[in-house]
Amino acid sequence: MTQLSATLIRELRAIAGDSAVYHRPEDLLLFEYDGTIDRGLPGVVVYPSTTEHVSAIVRLARQHGVPLIPRGAGTGLSGGALATEGGILMPMMRMNRLLELDLENRIAVVEPGMVNLELSRLVARHDLFYAPDPSSQKACTIGGNVAENAGGPHCLALGVTANHVLGLELVLADGAIVRTGGWGIDRGGYDLTGVVVGSEGTLAVVTKVCVRLLRRPEAVRTFLAVYDSIEQATEAVAAVIGAGIVPGALEMLDRNTIRAVEPILKCGYPLDAEAVLLVEIDGLAEAVRESVARIGAVLRECGARDVRSADDPRERERLWSGRKQAFGAFGALQPNYYILDGVVPPGRLPEVLAGVYAICDRHQLQVANVFHAGDGNLHPCVLFDERTPGVTERVLAAGAEIMRLCVDAGGSISGEHGIGIEKRDYMSWIFTDDDMHAMLRLKDAFGAGNGMNPCKAFPTHAGCGEIQRGPATAKLGGEAWV
Amino acid sequence: MTQLSATLIRELRAIAGDSAVYHRPEDLLLFEYDGTIDRGLPGVVVYPSTTEHVSAIVRLARQHGVPLIPRGAGTGLSGGALATEGGILMPMMRMNRLLELDLENRIAVVEPGMVNLELSRLVARHDLFYAPDPSSQKACTIGGNVAENAGGPHCLALGVTANHVLGLELVLADGAIVRTGGWGIDRGGYDLTGVVVGSEGTLAVVTKVCVRLLRRPEAVRTFLAVYDSIEQATEAVAAVIGAGIVPGALEMLDRNTIRAVEPILKCGYPLDAEAVLLVEIDGLAEAVRESVARIGAVLRECGARDVRSADDPRERERLWSGRKQAFGAFGALQPNYYILDGVVPPGRLPEVLAGVYAICDRHQLQVANVFHAGDGNLHPCVLFDERTPGVTERVLAAGAEIMRLCVDAGGSISGEHGIGIEKRDYMSWIFTDDDMHAMLRLKDAFGAGNGMNPCKAFPTHAGCGEIQRGPATAKLGGEAWV
Repeated sequence: MTQLSATLIRELRAIAGDSAVYHRPEDLLLFEYDGTIDRGLPGVVVYPSTTEHVSAIVRLARQHGVPLIPRGAGTGLSGGALATEGGILMPMMRMNRLLELDLENRIAVVEPGMVNLELSRLVARHDLFYAPDPSSQKACTIGGNVAENAGGPHCLALGVTANHVLGLELVLADGAIVRTGGWGIDRGGYDLTGVVVGSEGTLAVVTKVCVRLLRRPEAVRTFLAVYDSIEQATEAVAAVIGAGIVPGALEMLDRNTIRAVEPILKCGYPLDAEAVLLVEIDGLAEAVRESVARIGAVLRECGARDVRSADDPRERERLWSGRKQAFGAFGALQPNYYILDGVVPPGRLPEVLAGVYAICDRHQLQVANVFHAGDGNLHPCVLFDERTPGVTERVLAAGAEIMRLCVDAGGSISGEHGIGIEKRDYMSWIFTDDDMHAMLRLKDAFGAGNGMNPCKAFPTHAGCGEIQRGPATAKLGGEAWV
Repeated sequence: MTQLSATLIRELRAIAGDSAVYHRPEDLLLFEYDGTIDRGLPGVVVYPSTTEHVSAIVRLARQHGVPLIPRGAGTGLSGGALATEGGILMPMMRMNRLLELDLENRIAVVEPGMVNLELSRLVARHDLFYAPDPSSQKACTIGGNVAENAGGPHCLALGVTANHVLGLELVLADGAIVRTGGWGIDRGGYDLTGVVVGSEGTLAVVTKVCVRLLRRPEAVRTFLAVYDSIEQATEAVAAVIGAGIVPGALEMLDRNTIRAVEPILKCGYPLDAEAVLLVEIDGLAEAVRESVARIGAVLRECGARDVRSADDPRERERLWSGRKQAFGAFGALQPNYYILDGVVPPGRLPEVLAGVYAICDRHQLQVANVFHAGDGNLHPCVLFDERTPGVTERVLAAGAEIMRLCVDAGGSISGEHGIGIEKRDYMSWIFTDDDMHAMLRLKDAFGAGNGMNPCKAFPTHAGCGEIQRGPATAKLGGEAWV
């Protein structure tokens, strides 16, 4: 890991101001973590306030040959915001303004450091909201969501971040400021916006995000369905969707989750249930009212021993609390948890869940499952105490086996958390060498080499080695610097 | 334009078979057109039947330094499938099979030459359909839809082609066969699928398309609302969406369109109306039933002098016939038409439509407007007789002014037809040099240079000149060949 020079730190201060730069060891420790179990210590931390700051910092990093890691709130679940190779960590939290609000066309332009839920709060009085709702939405930033193409419970009906980002302002690897996309269903030209969404900070720094806002549904009703077996619950998932109903959300919580959350959060989940489903229907008041009977019937036909529903906001919030705050509640059971993120065809859920339990049993690990059942997006959460010798290795081994299980079931290694550092070496399970080569050449076109968020999203040999062998000229953002 | 050698033609025959190659002048004339008013004569036409044929043809074209133009059914409306620089035209129509159908997960894998409507027909007995529905859906291919990121009336609620393509098989410029995407909401890696959708055949040849299928709605109701002014009709568009209703489709037809279609098609549009709206609601039976009263009220509040609705399939088809067959009906008025494709924020529709009429008046041209009002996607259709001296120049001049009008209203030069050759020189109205440079470097990463579908989608100087100055090594698909 490169030791950063005093000159570099002085220059960062000159760019962004003294109060924007942190480099004392005790300060840097605060930035060693994100939402995963991995760590990475940056050499210096700088908070830009403007696009011009970002452009100057990018140019400075390249000039000094030092990696630059853009960061949101650090809530990411794949290690994407960790300074694993040291260098300059650049949290975007001070660039958090709402820049434009076009009510007529329901478009907002925000800075990347805006907290996800804050945007929905700001536009709520106009009866609008921003759809992607990761569980961390009270803390995570829209820029971080763009980097990881974040999802959330309501992505079943509404789509992931990529479906809601209309355009971006980017700082490229040579400091150039570029705009992509904008108003319109297909503007012409290549879809640069689409390439950058989900690129995990490896191609360019996002400095503005133009998003689509949606009108808040007139009515919302949340169902809780209680099952005595996982099979019945997964059949109900298929039956709801098979009935031609597209719920706003369709979430499953297993027994271990119920037993973790119910005593603390009192959400009304029976402690002896094997699984509960949360199903949310929204839309026009009449339409929601008319769907209630049908949804209830489908849930019961699949063996629900109890189906409750609520449209009162406080009661709905209570039903949701076990889902939204599950990960916090797990802390009462074990000091550490490791959340996995895999996706399988929904029809394979019963066998894949059985496999997840079997793998964790074999490794003598506790696992709780709370996840987006409607689109087959599993989030097994392995609970452990990192002070137990050797347990972290077992957790990681179980995680790898679970990812393999998802791939073997026709699924993939990421639903919505990104690849980051955690899953980079599994990329070869789903992509051929030719596929990966194609992606790396695309990366090469942006000219950041391994300088921006190094060693993320690609297998270590490819992400950290081969990419440097690209041509040194005619890159989108000039020459690679690391 | 290069004269193709006898060797090349012999080699094409050896690859794809004698009956797959056409090169006599009288045969080639059939391929001079697509759905636009431009023309381009290929040197030879070859119909591949397999991915291996495509790979061999791509390598052969590169070896001979001859352009290769992939083509669907030739219904495109921006000149994207024209062999403007000669070379090998490669219609994909013989690769038209349904390869896989996964009913449980509602996924189909098709060859690119499959006709759009054919896919919906094939899966109809399973109560499924493929959502993007361009007006040409009885003829156009899914591969062509992918190239142009095609839309259609029902894209208002369901999204354009990019929203329904999950993965692709591609032949790159060096003949390599690559797969992108697949099952899952975000698989990890860069979004190569998203880059290729809408890239107009300039990056790679699509040989397989993995698409999402949707369940057919249980109930559908179509409304016809009749207005005495364009302003009232556009206000109604805003009011419907503002009421929190997302119709499946929301189309407008102006007086000139009504007068062209009604006498021929008897769809029930009043001949003295200034505009009619077609609004379609679909979903669960109860939900549709309950929405009817509300939609009717909103349409009337905005001044509709009559609102009718139908849920009987034959009556619905009659209401839609004027929309779906409008372009054919225009043929009774004038022998030629030129369909434009611009998009504006829906709130700007009244002033932009007024501008369209004013421009056409000034150029003494007849214009009819029939378009996707819900997402502000205009399709002014200029009617003319190309035998009138100088009229084609006037049509093109009016077209350019209308595109400029859309851009000045905060919109763009393409809603869903692509840039092709028609609008390539307007790209600089919406993209800066830096933006365009970024796209061209992305193009460069695919290594096709100007060899695949040359001179499309970018300004002539950029698309045909600068791109050749990229580095000659380390391309995604090897070296550029033209």
